[in-house]
Amino acid sequence: MKVGIIGSGQLGYMMINTMRRYPIEFYVIDDNKGPSAFIADKFFDVSQYKEFVDSCDYVTYEFEHIDKNILEYADSKGKLRPSIKAVELKQDRSLEKKYLKDHGFPIADYEYAETYRDAFNKAKNFGKAVIKSCKGGYDGKNQYFIDNSSRFEGHPDIPYVVEKFIDYEYEASIIAVRDANGKFYHFEPSFNYNQNGILIYNISPIGNTIEMIDIAKKLMDSLEYIGVMGIEYYVVDGKVIINEYAPRVHNTGHHTLTGSSISQFEEHILAVAGMNIVRPDLFVPSGIVNIIGTDIREKIGSLLNLGNTNIYWYHKNEVRGKRKMGHVNVYGESYNAVEQKIREIIEILYGDRLEDFIQ
Amino acid sequence: MKVGIIGSGQLGYMMINTMRRYPIEFYVIDDNKGPSAFIADKFFDVSQYKEFVDSCDYVTYEFEHIDKNILEYADSKGKLRPSIKAVELKQDRSLEKKYLKDHGFPIADYEYAETYRDAFNKAKNFGKAVIKSCKGGYDGKNQYFIDNSSRFEGHPDIPYVVEKFIDYEYEASIIAVRDANGKFYHFEPSFNYNQNGILIYNISPIGNTIEMIDIAKKLMDSLEYIGVMGIEYYVVDGKVIINEYAPRVHNTGHHTLTGSSISQFEEHILAVAGMNIVRPDLFVPSGIVNIIGTDIREKIGSLLNLGNTNIYWYHKNEVRGKRKMGHVNVYGESYNAVEQKIREIIEILYGDRLEDFIQ
Repeated sequence: MKVGIIGSGQLGYMMINTMRRYPIEFYVIDDNKGPSAFIADKFFDVSQYKEFVDSCDYVTYEFEHIDKNILEYADSKGKLRPSIKAVELKQDRSLEKKYLKDHGFPIADYEYAETYRDAFNKAKNFGKAVIKSCKGGYDGKNQYFIDNSSRFEGHPDIPYVVEKFIDYEYEASIIAVRDANGKFYHFEPSFNYNQNGILIYNISPIGNTIEMIDIAKKLMDSLEYIGVMGIEYYVVDGKVIINEYAPRVHNTGHHTLTGSSISQFEEHILAVAGMNIVRPDLFVPSGIVNIIGTDIREKIGSLLNLGNTNIYWYHKNEVRGKRKMGHVNVYGESYNAVEQKIREIIEILYGDRLEDFIQ
Repeated sequence: MKVGIIGSGQLGYMMINTMRRYPIEFYVIDDNKGPSAFIADKFFDVSQYKEFVDSCDYVTYEFEHIDKNILEYADSKGKLRPSIKAVELKQDRSLEKKYLKDHGFPIADYEYAETYRDAFNKAKNFGKAVIKSCKGGYDGKNQYFIDNSSRFEGHPDIPYVVEKFIDYEYEASIIAVRDANGKFYHFEPSFNYNQNGILIYNISPIGNTIEMIDIAKKLMDSLEYIGVMGIEYYVVDGKVIINEYAPRVHNTGHHTLTGSSISQFEEHILAVAGMNIVRPDLFVPSGIVNIIGTDIREKIGSLLNLGNTNIYWYHKNEVRGKRKMGHVNVYGESYNAVEQKIREIIEILYGDRLEDFIQ
């Protein structure tokens, strides 16, 4: 069997590496050679997209910003999983918001805006709001927090969504999987800590997750979704609202590589390739710390010496500020034990200068 | 860092695949291209052994029957781990026996024999005995069970060891790791079920293991061992005797890929590459069933559907009788739960015809 992955970054890398032990070949397509290009069975340039799709039994993706030609061609051949709809909604934030709202999922109040000036005015009406470009933003890029003291500073004339600012208690996320027959499993939701819009660490399991699981099942059913989805939630006054979903394996699911019976990467490929998805068992509380903008070669000894850690290095060609270079998985007897280890890992990676690495 | 692995079989494959997430490159050398040749960063033919050794920081091996030139050259450059002594003892069964006996480790009574006729006579003196060729035997090859009714049948004139037959209660094994500073950790020993000299399944953890752990520590210290070692034991009347050791990762340690905080493959490379070995934590009872002489492509669905399973396929170029093609990892709430799943896996793989696949 041949499974194609659109995108050659770390998520595809972990898919391939995790699933190497199955009788599956992995083909990768991208416009430049990221980490997974070097471990794929075959690499295709985007110009070869027809050959790529034709030679695969199934085609999936590891990021949302995909060339329209590839998407549509893979879809026309009936090979694309998750569906083209699931990813098209993600290519424009306003479409995602509208879909969620129209289908009755809980989201923050929002407005669509044709221009930044329009968005700025609508944000002022909310009092506090966040302006996000409809296209192309991730890891906090193209996002602007606005309150009554903010001044108009003139941004590019592109469409935006304006979200009412949510003073949430915490961010959580769920990783769930659904197969072509509608079978559904979920991993235990996690608490996520972000700074500058970038995930710094997370911990699983957490309590009060019934609503999160219920929303995941309904959203995936409504999209007739096949594969793993990550959904980020805000928890406000004990209620859950959706921040956004990701139609792919997700950074907040990397902890499933440690202390679970199966990882999000395996579940995703099992679903995509029409194999039996399985119930994940959680053996022990676990979490991750992202390695951002720093090399760890000199720190591996210290990280291992902490105990209860696993190292994941993404083999990117260059260390840059804000860039996710890898992550450290960590497990412990309890949520608090994991949290304590996470503090120690952050100290090893960043000292007290975390802020310098995520600018 | 560059780590060289002598041998391109499934053990090296799992080492590379498990450790891909570290900033390490893996070079492989072999006289033909086994599974790991295709995922290595570079493959060398045995004729290129000097270039292979020179380009690596450390050199390890995944089997014992290694060309003397490579071994001696890697050793002369101070790069070979585990040491040349640990592997040389394994290249001649009589040297291994003598070493263990001379150092006071518990083994079965044995005699060295220059020829098969000599071995046959010595076996008759034991009553019941097993004759094993000094060189080249594994998975039950070149081994002969002899009792009073056996007739001399004329075997090649090569040296043998003759072991007094041990009517053992069960076979167990331990996987342990030692680093260059003498730090020692062990995984929980397993119960092993063999048929025709081939491991069919195993389960971990088991009780009464203090002696097994103690022997492992002493043996590894005595060899100033660096890396993972597997030791097979016979348990007789509550006592433990060594069957043999393997100076490498071991088939009975594959269960550490499921339900453990770290696998034998990671520990081995951490030790070999001079990184910090870590205490393995067992999350849940686990075991394996070997996939021998059969293709599983049509059976993956059923194996996954059982639940609590992970599939490992070795990507060998041809299915042959007795050949280990992969294994299934399995976990459960208890030893008995794992054992029950193992019965179901054996039924899926072999029906009631296991014997046909291991001839």
